[in-house]
Amino acid sequence: MKTTILIHCPDQTGIICSVTGFVHSQGGNIIYLDQHVEKASGELFMRIESEFLDAKLSVSHFKTQFDKELTEKFKIKWSIHTDETKPRMGLFVSKYNHCLYDLLSRFNSGELAVDIPFIISNHTDLEFVANQFDIPYYHIPVTKATKAEAENEQLALLEKYQIDFVVLARYMQIVTSKIIDRYPNKIINIHHSFLPAFAGAKPYHAAFKRGVKIIGATGHYVTEELDAGPIIAQDTTTVSHTNSIDDFIAKGRDLEKIVLSRAVKLHIQRKTMVYNNKTIIFS
Amino acid sequence: MKTTILIHCPDQTGIICSVTGFVHSQGGNIIYLDQHVEKASGELFMRIESEFLDAKLSVSHFKTQFDKELTEKFKIKWSIHTDETKPRMGLFVSKYNHCLYDLLSRFNSGELAVDIPFIISNHTDLEFVANQFDIPYYHIPVTKATKAEAENEQLALLEKYQIDFVVLARYMQIVTSKIIDRYPNKIINIHHSFLPAFAGAKPYHAAFKRGVKIIGATGHYVTEELDAGPIIAQDTTTVSHTNSIDDFIAKGRDLEKIVLSRAVKLHIQRKTMVYNNKTIIFS
Amino acid sequence: MKTTILIHCPDQTGIICSVTGFVHSQGGNIIYLDQHVEKASGELFMRIESEFLDAKLSVSHFKTQFDKELTEKFKIKWSIHTDETKPRMGLFVSKYNHCLYDLLSRFNSGELAVDIPFIISNHTDLEFVANQFDIPYYHIPVTKATKAEAENEQLALLEKYQIDFVVLARYMQIVTSKIIDRYPNKIINIHHSFLPAFAGAKPYHAAFKRGVKIIGATGHYVTEELDAGPIIAQDTTTVSHTNSIDDFIAKGRDLEKIVLSRAVKLHIQRKTMVYNNKTIIFS
Amino acid sequence: MKTTILIHCPDQTGIICSVTGFVHSQGGNIIYLDQHVEKASGELFMRIESEFLDAKLSVSHFKTQFDKELTEKFKIKWSIHTDETKPRMGLFVSKYNHCLYDLLSRFNSGELAVDIPFIISNHTDLEFVANQFDIPYYHIPVTKATKAEAENEQLALLEKYQIDFVVLARYMQIVTSKIIDRYPNKIINIHHSFLPAFAGAKPYHAAFKRGVKIIGATGHYVTEELDAGPIIAQDTTTVSHTNSIDDFIAKGRDLEKIVLSRAVKLHIQRKTMVYNNKTIIFS
Repeated sequence: MKTTILIHCPDQTGIICSVTGFVHSQGGNIIYLDQHVEKASGELFMRIESEFLDAKLSVSHFKTQFDKELTEKFKIKWSIHTDETKPRMGLFVSKYNHCLYDLLSRFNSGELAVDIPFIISNHTDLEFVANQFDIPYYHIPVTKATKAEAENEQLALLEKYQIDFVVLARYMQIVTSKIIDRYPNKIINIHHSFLPAFAGAKPYHAAFKRGVKIIGATGHYVTEELDAGPIIAQDTTTVSHTNSIDDFIAKGRDLEKIVLSRAVKLHIQRKTMVYNNKTIIFS
Repeated sequence: MKTTILIHCPDQTGIICSVTGFVHSQGGNIIYLDQHVEKASGELFMRIESEFLDAKLSVSHFKTQFDKELTEKFKIKWSIHTDETKPRMGLFVSKYNHCLYDLLSRFNSGELAVDIPFIISNHTDLEFVANQFDIPYYHIPVTKATKAEAENEQLALLEKYQIDFVVLARYMQIVTSKIIDRYPNKIINIHHSFLPAFAGAKPYHAAFKRGVKIIGATGHYVTEELDAGPIIAQDTTTVSHTNSIDDFIAKGRDLEKIVLSRAVKLHIQRKTMVYNNKTIIFS
Repeated sequence: MKTTILIHCPDQTGIICSVTGFVHSQGGNIIYLDQHVEKASGELFMRIESEFLDAKLSVSHFKTQFDKELTEKFKIKWSIHTDETKPRMGLFVSKYNHCLYDLLSRFNSGELAVDIPFIISNHTDLEFVANQFDIPYYHIPVTKATKAEAENEQLALLEKYQIDFVVLARYMQIVTSKIIDRYPNKIINIHHSFLPAFAGAKPYHAAFKRGVKIIGATGHYVTEELDAGPIIAQDTTTVSHTNSIDDFIAKGRDLEKIVLSRAVKLHIQRKTMVYNNKTIIFS
Repeated sequence: MKTTILIHCPDQTGIICSVTGFVHSQGGNIIYLDQHVEKASGELFMRIESEFLDAKLSVSHFKTQFDKELTEKFKIKWSIHTDETKPRMGLFVSKYNHCLYDLLSRFNSGELAVDIPFIISNHTDLEFVANQFDIPYYHIPVTKATKAEAENEQLALLEKYQIDFVVLARYMQIVTSKIIDRYPNKIINIHHSFLPAFAGAKPYHAAFKRGVKIIGATGHYVTEELDAGPIIAQDTTTVSHTNSIDDFIAKGRDLEKIVLSRAVKLHIQRKTMVYNNKTIIFS
């Protein structure tokens, strides 16, 4: 069995030694350790991948012992994840299919170690894609009047299917705190990004009008402040005056799908830790 | 002799044919023609590089004939530049030397076909660099109280030395309309750029705090609205949580110097045309 | 109707003027003209997009007139393409699905203006993908012994369905001159690329062993010399010592699919011209 | 005092714990730890930055204790570096100045924590740059006949000035094993790199002829096999058919100087470890 342990605690003498020593004492062989110290605040973040080969690890026993020996002593917030249970991913889409296709084709190829119990959409446009991949599709329309009710329906599905994290694959709707609060740093969104940024409803048009030479996309966790949550992944590509607005948008789509899939993969691999609206992305 | 002709006019049937025909009639051999039509407004932008081999071209005769035959007819705004006169570049710096060194070392290598009559600075820190490269250095201090007077001194130098365009190589001071109006789309500035943008005095710190994964730099013409002028060149590079603020700034310096030099080179080669706060950058 | 005209001829005085004048005389409004002169050889390459709005263009009449007035005079090789007929694309695949999914999802979104009459494969692995997208799938096994016969079958299908160009979407088989000669500069392949290059059967393993920091992919036309045909598109991404071979290959897959789709799109848009094993890629 | 410790040993249970415990026992506070396990060979590489604040660290005492307690036990190859002694860098150049200027301007700005006792060149072309920066310049001509003798002179200077590592800033001469053997993984070179690679004397011309869309540069340690040593840093940039050979070379120069300076900086910061012709580059 392979485990990934994520640790967050005040930086202090002996912490790495104590944790690695504990893992060894439980029969684990550390195959990757990466750590980061936020100097300003003196906080330590650590990610440890271990293999438990000889003995079958009892996760619950590991947890109990870890808490007894380390949690209090070092004031550790931690979690352990094994490769025996796949995280369950909820997919929200609207009308654009490029991110959806990219995620589902990777899923189909075995590149994403998740379960995808369903796809939720406020439109019926992409039901045919869900059918192509044999995934249940729930059409939950959203209007101003029905938004609260729609989110209740969404939450009910998220709970019924024991969803671990949510991916907004160009969902195009604002998700409210009702859902965000239940999935803190567990909802991943993709949005276009520009240098400099352009506010308002049609950023590609604004960027085009300004004649930018680079466009980008940002994959991030959703927080209540719109598009301002912790950044997981970003990428950029070049554009020029020869590109039409349609070209801008097409190039944006390519960025969006690659960056969103990259962010989702980092999340699944437990390579992301969030701290103060900022991410540590382990390599 | 080699000439570059820049043309801006309403798009219309026969314009390319008429202009290229005229150049041929004057003994010119077109070695590069690039054109761009802004579809929304129906405006044509064209850049033509020609060689005049057999005969010695009389530029003034060329101008007169062009105006007579084409300017009115097609409502053309145009300019002609020959490789026999080098543009004269005014350099403004403050305390940072990375952009200055990059420009001067390229200048020294013959990569930039300009004259650099002087360097102006509000500080004395970089006088030694000017000395290294044997370029006159004018120290014009700028305070709130003396800003207007300082700009008068700067203008006097720009005029005395018949400066064609100005490069703000990390000048760190706002240039007012008093100077901008005299050099429209002829003052080049470099500034850091982020996805998303961060307002305020310390953008690198803000970007660091947000945990961005990409930083960028933008070379642009200076307009009255701060850092909002037509974009000439941009580039980005990746950063991560392992980078300190100092790393961010160091990576930013590398971007700034390369992007500024690239923008300056495009300007010198007459590959930039400005239209509605947007650039056409010919290749 | 929109047309794209591609022209290749010796560079000569008056050629641009004559061609643009001809297009106008036929009722065409030029919306994009891009040209390139290979200075070493004095050859001109030109791409002209025009709209024929008022009158219905007779393509055959246009061709006859063009040949009469221009072809001989300027020694032009040329072709005209209209948006009224879609090119027919033959897809060859093997066992990897990332490029196939990327192409088909773009096709489904209307991003690729082609017809895809069938998918050919030497394996049955991807038949389910063809079924997902309702495209006929021909399984033509290839062994050393049956290679010649298999290519005959492939050729028969290419002809039967009047295929205009072929895309090898990770086909993993060498295509011989029997097919290449029938589709010169009309077969597009994708292959991984490294700095420096690594020969042999397992280039990702070799690159990994050397500890490269950048990997790339190249989309190119197939010629008889393996992986040495004219390059249409390339891209790179960064890797590090923290990446396993599997990571290298996964990052390579992302590059491959994006670069192949980009190359296919450029081909469909008639933005590629080949000359001496080199491409002109219009913007 | 700040120290950097580099460790290379067989991967084994308890090694991280033992080493970090030892650093603490000597009064060190670990501010960064990064480690990498080569799974294929089971080798561990670790880099530890520590601060010794309260007490003045005796490096020699630290070394003795480390050897006594850890070196034999874990079969560790290791080194310790403090920020109290700057490495001494020998600079070799030929006729191109872009890399030289880039390194010297960074040096002047305090970005490179080294001493540069001299510049060696086989030509006199860049003596003026050395003079600009007040660095002694040794002109040692190299011909086929005098190569061995020239290398003896170079070695004598390297030894006299106690050079720690050498940077070939576009030196354009092959350095033989006579020098390489004395500075294993301590000579840094920069060379252009292409996808695919082009052999022979004029790679930019070959890449131009093939119509590549991306060019690159590789910074690497020099080994006896030409341009095949462990890679420290790489970067790429885009080119197109509109670029002349001169443009290719100019873009190459920009890559070369940035990538070489990046490689030099990584070396100075002790972020590189070499293993089997491959580098571990710590972040």
